[in-house]
Amino acid sequence: MEPISLQPIGIVRSPLVLLDDCPLQGHEGAPEAWIELLPGFETGIKDLAPGKELILLTWFHAADRSVLQCYPRKEVNAPPLGVFTTRSPDRPNPIGLHPVTVLAVEAGRVKVHPLEALDGTPVIDIKPVI
Amino acid sequence: MEPISLQPIGIVRSPLVLLDDCPLQGHEGAPEAWIELLPGFETGIKDLAPGKELILLTWFHAADRSVLQCYPRKEVNAPPLGVFTTRSPDRPNPIGLHPVTVLAVEAGRVKVHPLEALDGTPVIDIKPVI
Repeated sequence: MEPISLQPIGIVRSPLVLLDDCPLQGHEGAPEAWIELLPGFETGIKDLAPGKELILLTWFHAADRSVLQCYPRKEVNAPPLGVFTTRSPDRPNPIGLHPVTVLAVEAGRVKVHPLEALDGTPVIDIKPVI
Repeated sequence: MEPISLQPIGIVRSPLVLLDDCPLQGHEGAPEAWIELLPGFETGIKDLAPGKELILLTWFHAADRSVLQCYPRKEVNAPPLGVFTTRSPDRPNPIGLHPVTVLAVEAGRVKVHPLEALDGTPVIDIKPVI
């Protein structure tokens, strides 16, 4: 099957700059962050408002895409699990799903909380929680 | 920002073959479907089991990727909304998020329910619900 071309729609601006600073999940102490929409995509956020709950989709650009088995939560004494039973960022298509709440909306950017993604991470979609 | 190359990891095998047959959301009458893993990715599902809850990520290959505003739930009398406030499949990166339950696991494939995706839809990731 042919590869698919994803177009980033925004970029994460966050105080998280080192992979070792990232919590394993967003609810484990992740900070606030801004999502800056890339040129041409700003219209898409015009109806977002503070308090709205979203699922952000990001691309973990630092991930190892060759991983098919891994050790969950760094428990290396257990047998490895098939990667699709885990939320490891190292996986064939390293898409991150982040439940967040909107804190503020400005022209071309939106502030959210909590977000466990590094500064500079591409954002590929924004969906409302339903 | 550079485009990103997604590699499909599987394909949907479903009785849904026409776009008009698709419910708007999975809980609105979507059928059971098989996910066939593509060659090389079968190991990734080895620890899935019936009853497990997953989020499937698919690629809506029939979508219009130029859409930035749209009418939700086909209400054409309301003003259009920014696409990131909606779950429209027509969007810049038409990724579908599908909460499903595993019904069966066989070599290289997994049966899930409910799934509102057409037969032949590429699957790009499988994640456990946490």
